[in-house]
This record gives sequence, structure tokens and C-alpha cells, in this order.
Amino acid sequence: MANITKKVSWSSRGDESGGGERTPLLNGSEELSGDGGMFHIGRLSTVDLEEDMTSDEVTFSFLSILDYDNSENQLFLEEERRMSFLGFKCLEISRWVICGLIGFLTGLIACCIDIAVENLAGVKYYVVKQNIEKFTEVGGLSISLILWAVLNSAFVMVGAVIVAFFEPGAAGSGIPQIKCYLNGVKIPRVVRLKTLVVKVCGVICSVAGGLAVGKEGPMIHSGAVVAAGVSQGRSTSLKKDFKIFEYFRRDTEKRDFVSAGAAAGVSAAFGAPVGGVLFSLEEGASFWNQMLTWRIFFASMISTFTLNFFLSIYNNKPGDLSSPGLINFGRFESDSVAYNLYEIPLFIVMGAAGGLLGALFNILNYWLTIFRIRYVHRPCLQVMEAMLVAPLGPDQSEDYPLQLFCADGEYNSMATAFFNTPERSVRSLFHNPPGSYNPLTLSLFTLTYFFLACWTYGLTVSAGVFIPSLLIGAAWGRLFGILLAAITPNGSVWAVPGKYALMGAAAQLGGIVRMTLSLTVIMVEATGNVTYGLPIMLVLLTAKIVGDYFVEGLYDIHIKLQSVPFLHLEAPATSHWLTAREVMGAPVTCFNRIEKVGTIVDVLSNTSTNHNGFPVVMPVAASDNLGKICGLILRSQLIVLLKHKVFVELARSRLTQRKLQLKDFRDAYPRFPPIQSIHVSQDERECMMDLTEFMNPTPYTVPQETSLPRVFKLFRALGLRHLVVVDSENRVVGLVTRKDLARYHLGKHGLEEMQLAQT
Amino acid sequence: MANITKKVSWSSRGDESGGGERTPLLNGSEELSGDGGMFHIGRLSTVDLEEDMTSDEVTFSFLSILDYDNSENQLFLEEERRMSFLGFKCLEISRWVICGLIGFLTGLIACCIDIAVENLAGVKYYVVKQNIEKFTEVGGLSISLILWAVLNSAFVMVGAVIVAFFEPGAAGSGIPQIKCYLNGVKIPRVVRLKTLVVKVCGVICSVAGGLAVGKEGPMIHSGAVVAAGVSQGRSTSLKKDFKIFEYFRRDTEKRDFVSAGAAAGVSAAFGAPVGGVLFSLEEGASFWNQMLTWRIFFASMISTFTLNFFLSIYNNKPGDLSSPGLINFGRFESDSVAYNLYEIPLFIVMGAAGGLLGALFNILNYWLTIFRIRYVHRPCLQVMEAMLVAPLGPDQSEDYPLQLFCADGEYNSMATAFFNTPERSVRSLFHNPPGSYNPLTLSLFTLTYFFLACWTYGLTVSAGVFIPSLLIGAAWGRLFGILLAAITPNGSVWAVPGKYALMGAAAQLGGIVRMTLSLTVIMVEATGNVTYGLPIMLVLLTAKIVGDYFVEGLYDIHIKLQSVPFLHLEAPATSHWLTAREVMGAPVTCFNRIEKVGTIVDVLSNTSTNHNGFPVVMPVAASDNLGKICGLILRSQLIVLLKHKVFVELARSRLTQRKLQLKDFRDAYPRFPPIQSIHVSQDERECMMDLTEFMNPTPYTVPQETSLPRVFKLFRALGLRHLVVVDSENRVVGLVTRKDLARYHLGKHGLEEMQLAQT
Repeated sequence: MANITKKVSWSSRGDESGGGERTPLLNGSEELSGDGGMFHIGRLSTVDLEEDMTSDEVTFSFLSILDYDNSENQLFLEEERRMSFLGFKCLEISRWVICGLIGFLTGLIACCIDIAVENLAGVKYYVVKQNIEKFTEVGGLSISLILWAVLNSAFVMVGAVIVAFFEPGAAGSGIPQIKCYLNGVKIPRVVRLKTLVVKVCGVICSVAGGLAVGKEGPMIHSGAVVAAGVSQGRSTSLKKDFKIFEYFRRDTEKRDFVSAGAAAGVSAAFGAPVGGVLFSLEEGASFWNQMLTWRIFFASMISTFTLNFFLSIYNNKPGDLSSPGLINFGRFESDSVAYNLYEIPLFIVMGAAGGLLGALFNILNYWLTIFRIRYVHRPCLQVMEAMLVAPLGPDQSEDYPLQLFCADGEYNSMATAFFNTPERSVRSLFHNPPGSYNPLTLSLFTLTYFFLACWTYGLTVSAGVFIPSLLIGAAWGRLFGILLAAITPNGSVWAVPGKYALMGAAAQLGGIVRMTLSLTVIMVEATGNVTYGLPIMLVLLTAKIVGDYFVEGLYDIHIKLQSVPFLHLEAPATSHWLTAREVMGAPVTCFNRIEKVGTIVDVLSNTSTNHNGFPVVMPVAASDNLGKICGLILRSQLIVLLKHKVFVELARSRLTQRKLQLKDFRDAYPRFPPIQSIHVSQDERECMMDLTEFMNPTPYTVPQETSLPRVFKLFRALGLRHLVVVDSENRVVGLVTRKDLARYHLGKHGLEEMQLAQT
Repeated sequence: MANITKKVSWSSRGDESGGGERTPLLNGSEELSGDGGMFHIGRLSTVDLEEDMTSDEVTFSFLSILDYDNSENQLFLEEERRMSFLGFKCLEISRWVICGLIGFLTGLIACCIDIAVENLAGVKYYVVKQNIEKFTEVGGLSISLILWAVLNSAFVMVGAVIVAFFEPGAAGSGIPQIKCYLNGVKIPRVVRLKTLVVKVCGVICSVAGGLAVGKEGPMIHSGAVVAAGVSQGRSTSLKKDFKIFEYFRRDTEKRDFVSAGAAAGVSAAFGAPVGGVLFSLEEGASFWNQMLTWRIFFASMISTFTLNFFLSIYNNKPGDLSSPGLINFGRFESDSVAYNLYEIPLFIVMGAAGGLLGALFNILNYWLTIFRIRYVHRPCLQVMEAMLVAPLGPDQSEDYPLQLFCADGEYNSMATAFFNTPERSVRSLFHNPPGSYNPLTLSLFTLTYFFLACWTYGLTVSAGVFIPSLLIGAAWGRLFGILLAAITPNGSVWAVPGKYALMGAAAQLGGIVRMTLSLTVIMVEATGNVTYGLPIMLVLLTAKIVGDYFVEGLYDIHIKLQSVPFLHLEAPATSHWLTAREVMGAPVTCFNRIEKVGTIVDVLSNTSTNHNGFPVVMPVAASDNLGKICGLILRSQLIVLLKHKVFVELARSRLTQRKLQLKDFRDAYPRFPPIQSIHVSQDERECMMDLTEFMNPTPYTVPQETSLPRVFKLFRALGLRHLVVVDSENRVVGLVTRKDLARYHLGKHGLEEMQLAQT
């Protein structure tokens, strides 16, 4: 019936020619492991790499799936019912307080990064300047250049070493990881305190070291880590439990706060609180929750405000809150640069160019990433690669090589573009008056920077790709504007190359990351001009459409390389052919309402299946091997039950035994111990466990005939992790998990079934 | 078990002392009628009123519930499966084209309204000015005043007559109706062409007539009507079917476009495309759909752009797109007015004041509305009331009565505030230099305008409440700023009353309508300054919290007065006590898979139940009166089947009979004929109907024990209309409808069960 192309995925294709790290999908029934299981993923630069990469199949990563559906078991309902109206009010107030804290801390971190980068860069410039003054007379400019390169390399080395050796999870921009988290897949150690520290130090080093990087990706990641930490009221790394916010120790609540953190990060980076909210929504939230959105907005607002406030104090202008954001593109005054209706086609052409160049960037970076996965996986090699790129950074080439192309009058501003931090260069390209740049130099700059940025993304340093992309785009956009002014007779309208720089920047960034809505708003907020909203949106849409024709967005490529079962917004359009029966995993391991401990331990210990959710059934008849659904229980719940030895026999003997409470589950969250660490004696194996109180008695179910889009919608709208498929008798016939849905993919030739990596 | 206060609703309370138009809720099982049924609602000024209000129970309105869950029956699946990948692409492109069209037309309408109002007001001013010049010498200023009042009354009369006699659905701002539509309840004739025409003409008349009204509410309503019309590719009013966009003729798609239309309306009104998107999301969308949001954003962008483009041509500055929106508050330059950390508490105090004043406004307006429902329900009375208010409009009092309070120097700007359109007055209050206003005059103005605006909202004219609220708030905000500057010694910081006017405006508007997120963004976009984002948000939040303590928002009051089963964002916090078993309606009328035509006709004709969805069951055993669920069929589908006489016997006899297609259902959408209009002969009553192909074979079901919040979440996230409750054997035991959920409400004393009006 279904015309599905069975096809290996992009990532698997890479592996076919490579080391074959993946096993093909055997059947759809198995599910990603949560905590005790293993998950083979392609070796990737942004995820830690183990030293011994000798075996063909190295298991080094535990992806876990988040569960946004509350397990409404008896314990939970009892707690909720005990809680008074006032209790709910207090919870709501705590949520706001936490969001305020998240915003405040994120803003503070942004402030620290800004000040640290500024000071380090200042020291660097000072040393080099001293050196130039000392040696220029004796003709030793090359010595200054070498000193410059050495300083840069030193900074980058520090940044690369801490990332490569201490916390590989802090590499890269962090946006793919946060995207995954918000989508419902947790990449290991992505929201740990150590990651945050390394990320912050790493980004300071890489920016101060003059790499072609930005601070915005790391800021977003930092915001998310802050949120995950603050909202739980404890730090497992520091082994400190503040005994507050215990109610929020579950996936649903934590994810909400992480969205707020990510938004606060965007907001601090660009001074774009609304853009931050939309970023979080675009990337993460699958259903709209108004209260949550307000809180996210609040966190974003507080974050920008905090950053501004402390920066204003630092700059000795306390209370001047007019320059929001770490990255400021300068305000486009609406009267100075307006656009006209007939310029819109030009902007669309620029959007298409951005899409093409973005696709090229992504393809090159994909090849490079594959190369890195295969050959540059040792930390020391990674550090060396980073140090190799460092002295190539454009800010050291301000004097010598490019002077060749510069007319004397243009020299200074061109030098500024090369010497400056990328943000300042973007600003200059947007706002410098016509005639500031020599077209030839600008072309060379674009070309150099394009390859440099492409090489840099994926290095083992903390680094964002927004600013380099904007810079590339601004450069060729300005070039476009200059050429346009040169070939058109009446120069008055076309004489403002700044707006073309802006459109080019939008096009290039859109072509690389393929965001539209949030990016439009971020650009509008960062430039402070709403007039350009429509053209920016058109440019971004064109860039996305053109770029998507060739290859996916940069973040999606990296997510795919990690074989993450990422759920897109909607089921593939042509997937009505498929029904739950075809996508579900079967047979399903079920438990009885009162189950033998030995059976449970055996099932949980079975590493070849690694299920995470188990339907609880009532046997219908002895002959019938399918039981009627009466609940759903999670691996993590069973583990807590086993740990506390909640056995029927023991409860009878020890009447005084404390009843297990929701608190016990919360205390174990999120790092539930593996089954191996729980000792169950032979006697205990014969005991029985009563799951009634702990299972979710009302799991969502669908009939077998439900179409895939319908299953998908249910899954995505409710943030499910398990969906039980039942027959007309309510008997469990299968279980749909995230991976069963993430397999289907709309390729160029219709529906394709990907082979996601699998235990 | 549940500690629920059984309580009559606000609206019913009104009725208790009044005419008793409502019957109490008898049991929860019945459902709102869709098309064939009747629904008693309180007589309301914004909905049409029948002439004969003599009987105690007048049935005059048909509320219908929208169904956002596709009925995935065999016909639907076959069509989807037939469609190629290219087909889906084309559909997607059509959606974008429609959104572009919606934006364009909405922008055009906004432009027409603006130009018409400007010209009419110009004519009015000219006539009066001539008159003043002629009569001032002979001491006849009172003649001018009378002329002025007559002109105003004439405009208002025209506006009121067309609304009261031709299309009462066009009364008011339209925002409550659109909120209901986006929430899933369709108020009759809310998206008809006639409503649009009357709305547009009505708002032109009321604004030109000098009422204390704004154009933004009607703009939002207009956008929604445009969207509903364009997306369906036909107009039932004009009896014209363009045979395009047929795929979109269902609730799901239509609602999406209506969201886009509402956003385009906001965008055109305030020049706030992002605010428009957030408005739509805040009010309507229950789950986040990225593609939809992009399209909404696109429509918003096009709408602002179109408006600007045509206005720039009208103003002889073609291509100058720098003044977005109908309503422009003037740009706050960030350097001229900054705020400081210690001003934030002051802003919060203002927010609280706004909340209080807003609550007062709402309570007064509620009483007034109750009064109107009871006594002013004849169209002629309504027109007379509108004409009574018209000459009280503040723009006629510019000279005479208030001169008493004006010092000579202040006279002019004060007169400007009274004489001007409300928008211009807001702008003056925001931007005029310190010292422009006399505090006493300003107080009097605030007081007058407050009561006037309160009286005006709910008149039988098209009118928005945003601008009057902003004006009231700006006036007392400015007053607050002036007083602050007077009592503080160092006048430098406090000397800028404009920012207090802004905060006051935000506070007052927030206190009345209780929006936060979208309103913050709208205010930021309309003032062009992102720096004020945080204080505006804090002010709006405070206003909401304070206001909610006393009374609901203005729109919610009006929605409640219409007894609309409005679903809020989340289930009441303390509703975990309740389960599906307690909220569901039972027993449920079910059909068999192959059912006798007579039975179906009888059930559909039964006006005492008026169900809209019917579970289709398989009988389990003869003794068992509960059948196993195997599908769900809608009243509208059954009606189409009856109309086309899809009977098993006929299909056998007439082999050539055309098979019923999805097209037949789409052609009948949305005005399915009532059952009374379908003639079924006595012979045909004995025939059988096979529902298998037409029913939705996979309706969502929940077990009886599911808690109310869980049911609510499912309902809201998926936009359901019917949710079947089953027992462990999959037998139908009940049906949850929107009304069963909307009944529960969190009052001051915990959970309350409202008595929604009922047949």
C-alpha cells in the first residue's frame, strides 16, 4: 500500500562510506533508552568522544527522551487534591520568581562575558600596539604579527582545552542541543553546571582569541543551563539541595523553564525579548500555553534589563538603559534609509543568493564535520585544529596582506572591518557612509571570511554561528549595494548600501540556520527599525525555500548527525497511507497489575530491548495472550519502587512501613539509578509488586486504524513519550514511541523511512 | 468528594432579578446545538434582538461549536492518499497566497476607513468652522455648538441605524466575537460579508461622529471576516462560488485563516505585525503550529505594508513607508525619555491604579449592559441611545464649558485635546512638552471621558474600546506625572510627563481588557521604542492581577453575558477531584454501524436533545445496552447523507448512483440545512444507512477515570468537539463536550459549577 522509499538517512549515508558505526533498524518496536539504556550515535565533534575509537561500534552516549505527559497516578492525584487553591497560587508565584531569577542570572552572565571579552581583547590590543610601536621603526612588523598570532592561539588554546578535556558538551553553539531538548530529546550533560562554566569560559576565550565566532549561541545555551539549574532548586554537581522548588522536579516543568532560559539567552544576546520568546516557541513549544509564554517573556525582559543595567553601571552611565543586548547593530533611522516597492524584487534575489550561499556553507560544513568525526576525534587533535584556525582569524590580517588592494583613503575603514570584533564590523557595514569600502577588498574579505567561518563552526570551542553569518552576508550585501549604485544612473535611492548590507546579512543567516519568524523579529529588534520587517521576512523566506531545496539547515544537519529522533512540526504530508498498526512497535512487554519482582527486574535488565514505558494489563482469559490495558508505568518509576522495595509481602509484614510518596520519585529525578545498581535478593525476586498506585491509570490510547498524521498530532500536541495502541477490545497490541514517528521523513521522492541508529 | 460550589453564573445572576430568560442546567449531557438546534442566551446588545420579547423564553440565537478535529473518515483518507506530494505543495502555496490576499484586503479596508474618516471629519470641521466664523460676531456660538451636535448625531445615527436594523452582529468592537470564534464557538453571522460592510460603514460613522471610540476593534473583526470569506473561495451572501480553495472548506482550515485575518487587523490598526501574531496566538490558537504562525505573520506584514503603501500614495509621498498603522502614537526617542530603576515601583503603582480603574469601568459597563439587555432592546431605542450619547462627545466641548478652567496660555493645547480625534489626543498627551496641560482641566477631562467611554462601549454602533481606554489612561497618567514633578524637588527626571502618560495608558487599557503579552508588544511597536518594554509589561501585569481580583476583563464579561461555553487555557487548578465520569454527559445517543433511516431522522429531529456528535457502536450482546465504540459521526454528516439519500437499499437498486464524495460535504459547509428541510418518506424511513464510510473510525477516547485536567488538556490541545468516554471494555458510557468543560470555573471560593444556559 504505502509508497515509502526505504532509505538510509543522511547520517547513515555518511557512515556507509565511513566506519559503519550504525546498525540498521531491525524493527520499529524498540525505543530509545532513557537512563539505563545505550544508544549508538555517530561520533560527533559537538558531543564528547571517547579515547578508544578502535571498535566499530562505540557506545558513548545516552540520549534520553523527555516525558511531557504527567503520569497521573494515584500519588499524583492525591497530592493535587490535597493542595488548596492557595497552594496553586503559591506555585504560580514561584514559577514567576524562578523566571525572574533565570532572567536575572542570564543577564548577569551575559554581562560578565561582555566585560571579560572586552578586557581580554583590550589587553591583547594593548600588548600588540606596544609591540608595533616598538618594532615598526626597525622594520619588524612581522614580529608584531607573530605576537598577535601567538596571543590569539593562546586564547583559543585555553578555550579549546577546557572544552575538549573537561566538557565536550560545551562545544559549538549549543543551539542544536537546546533545540533537541525543547523538542523532547535530552543530549547528555547538556544542562549541567559544568557545561555552563566551560561554555562561558570557552566563549570568552574564543571571542577574545579572534575566532570567527559569535557569543549568541553560547548565551542561549547558558540561559538554558541556568534555567534547568535554578528551577530544580538543587545542583547535583555541587551535591547541594536547597529543598525548594521540589514540585518542579519533573520533565514537564523543567522543560518549561528551559524554554524561558533559552529565550532569556536570545534576549540578552540581541536585546530582543520578543525575538527570544518567538525563538523558544519556534524551536520548542509544541502547544501554546499562554501563562508559560508570559513567563518566558518576563524572563526575557528581565534578562535584557539586567544586562543593560549592569553594563550601564560598568560604563559609568548608571540608569541609561537605551542600548539593549550584547550584540547591537546600531539603529537604522527610518527616515535615513527607506525602501521602495520596486526594491522588493531585489531583496528577494538577495534572499535567493543567501539561500544558495547558505546551502553551500552547510554542505561544506557537513563534509568537514564528517571528516572531523572520522579523523579529528582525539581531544589533543581537536585542540590543535582550533589553534591552527586561530592565527588565520581575519583580525590579524589588517595591515599586511590586504593593503595591496586598498586605496589609501579606504584603507582605514577597511582595516577597521578586519581588525574589529565581528559585531563591530557588522555595524560598520550597516552604517558606514557610501564609499567607505573598496569593492575588491570587500569581495576578498567575504570569500576569506566565508571559508573561515565554515571551518570554525564545529571546532572544539564554544562558538556561535550567527555573527559570522551576519558578517558574511553584510559584506556581500554591501558589495551588492555598491555594484547596484555603480550600474544604475540615478544614484540617489541606491546610494545607501547599508540596507543591502542588512538584507544580505539576513539572507546569509537565514540561508544557514533557516529560521524565519524569530529571526525576523530578532533582526527587527536588534536594528530597532520595524519598517524593514516585511523585506527581512521576505528575504528570510526566500532564503529558506531556496536553501531547503538543496540541504537542511545547519542545526538540523548537526542534529541529524547525532541521529536524534527529532520530531518535526507535522507528520509528512503524504503519510496518510500509514496507520498506527504499521508504525507501532509490537509485541509490547506488558506487566500485570500485580507483578512478580523477578519478572520486572529481568525485563528492566534486558539490555537488548531497553523499553522505558510498560503498559499494565489485566489478563482477559487464559488463552488470550493480549491483556486489556489498565495503565502505563515508566522504567524510572519501577526503579524507584524496586529501590524502596515496595513489595506486597513486605508491606504486610512491616505495617509501619512508610508509604512511598511522590517526593521519593522527585528526589531521584532526573538521574534515576540504573537497574544494575539495585540489588534484589533471590527471595525478593519471588515477591510481588502492586503497581496500581503508581501506574498512570489513564494513558492515552489510539485504535490500530488511526492514521499516522493523527497519531503524530496527538503525540506532538501533548508531548507524549508513549502511546498505547489498542484493538477494539481495549487489548494492548502495540506501543508508539517518538522514534517510530521520527523515522518517517519527507524526502525529494516522497515519504522516506530513515534508519535511525539503534541498539 | 468534590467540594464544588454550585453557583449560578454572573449572567444568570443578572437574570434572576430580571426576566428569568434562562432555564437552569438540568443535566450536563446535553450539548449546544450546531445548526439545527436552538440555544437560549441572555438578550444582549451586541447580538441581534428580536422584536417580540414578550415571552419569557425567547430563542433567538444559534451558537455553533467549531470542530478542529478532522473527521478522518474513509472519504477523507482516500482523498489524502490520492493526493501527490506536489498536491500538498500546491495546497501549501495556496495557503500562503490566501494569507497574502487576506493581508492585502485588510490593509486596503484599513486604508479606506482611514481616508473616509479623515474626509468626513474634514467636511464636518469645515462646516462648523464656517458657521463659527459667521456667527461669532453676533454672539451665536451656541448655534455653532448646536450645529456641531446635530452633525455628530447625524453621523452616529447613520452608524447606529445600519447596525441596529441591518446587522446587529456588527455592533461593538467585535473582539469578543473573534475571541469566541478563535476559541471554537461561532456566534451567528460573525464572519459574513454583510457584517463586514456594516462594520466598516458603522465605524466610519461613529468615528466621524465624534464618539469616544476607536477603529481597532472593528479592524480586527474586519480582518477576520475578510479571512473567512477569501479562504472559502465563495460568498454565500452573494451566491457566488469561485470554485477555488475548496479544500479549505472545513472548520480547521477556516479557523487558521481567521486567526491570520485577526492578526492582519491588529497589524493594520497599530502597525504592529508581531503584536498581531501574538494577539492571535494569545486569543486563539491552542496549540503552536509553526507554519501557521509564519503565515499569520506574513498576512500581518502584508497588511501593514499595504496600508502604508496606499496611505503614502494618498498623502502624495509614494514609497514612504515609515508611518505604519492606522493608529500612531508617535515615536518615543530613547534618548529623550529614559526611565530609571527607582521609577519602576511608581510604574507598578500606576499599574495597580489602572487595574482598579479598569475594574470600575468594567463593573459600570456590566451594569449598563444588563440595563440595556433589559430595557434598550428595540432597534429604535438603541439608535436613540446612540444619538443621545453623540452630542456629549468631548470634541464639541472644546470651547465653552472648559474655558472656565483654562489659563490663557494653556487653552489651546487643552482645546486640542478635546477637539481632536482620540488618537491625536493620545499622541499629544504622550509627547507634548511639560506644562502643556492644566492639571484641573486634565482631571475633569479624565473624569468626563471615563464615563463617556464606559457609556459608549455597548452602544449599537461599531466601536473599539482600545483608543478611549488609552486616552483615559494617558490623561490620568500625565496628571500623575505633573503631580509628581510638582511634589519632588529635583524636577529633571520627573519633568517628562509623557512617559507617565504612556504608562497610564498601558495601565488603563490593561485594566480593562486584561491582555498582557500581545498588548506589551503592540504598545512597543506602536510607540517604536523597545526600551519601555519591561515597564509596560510590569504595568500590564499589575493591572491584570489587580483587576482580576475584582472582576473579569471587559471582553470576558461580554462573552459571559452571551453564555458562550468559552474554554479557558487550562482546567481550573483545583479540579483534579473531578473525573471524566462526573463531567460527561450520559446516557449517549449512539447509532449502529448500519442504522435505520427512521431512527436517525427521529434522533436528529428531537429538539430536546440536539446532539451534534453520535458515537457509532457495535452491539456486544443482546443483553448489553452499551455498545462498543467503533466510530463517531456528526450531525452535519448525517444531514448530508440523508439529503443525498445514501441508503443501502437504493445503492443496490441504482447501481449507477454516484458515490458520495468529500466534495458534497464541502459544498454544504458551513450552512448545513436543518433536518426539518429534508424530506424523508415513510418508505425511506424503513431503509438502512451504512455509516462505515462516513464516520470517523478513530475518535479520541478516554477512560472514565481520567481526571478533568487531563480531559481538558486533550480537548484544548486538539481542539476537540466531542470526546467519547469508554469503559474498560471500550463500550461507550458517555460523551464529553465543550460545555461540560466550560461549566467549571475557579471562583473566589474554589471550584464553582456554572449554570450555563441550556435548551
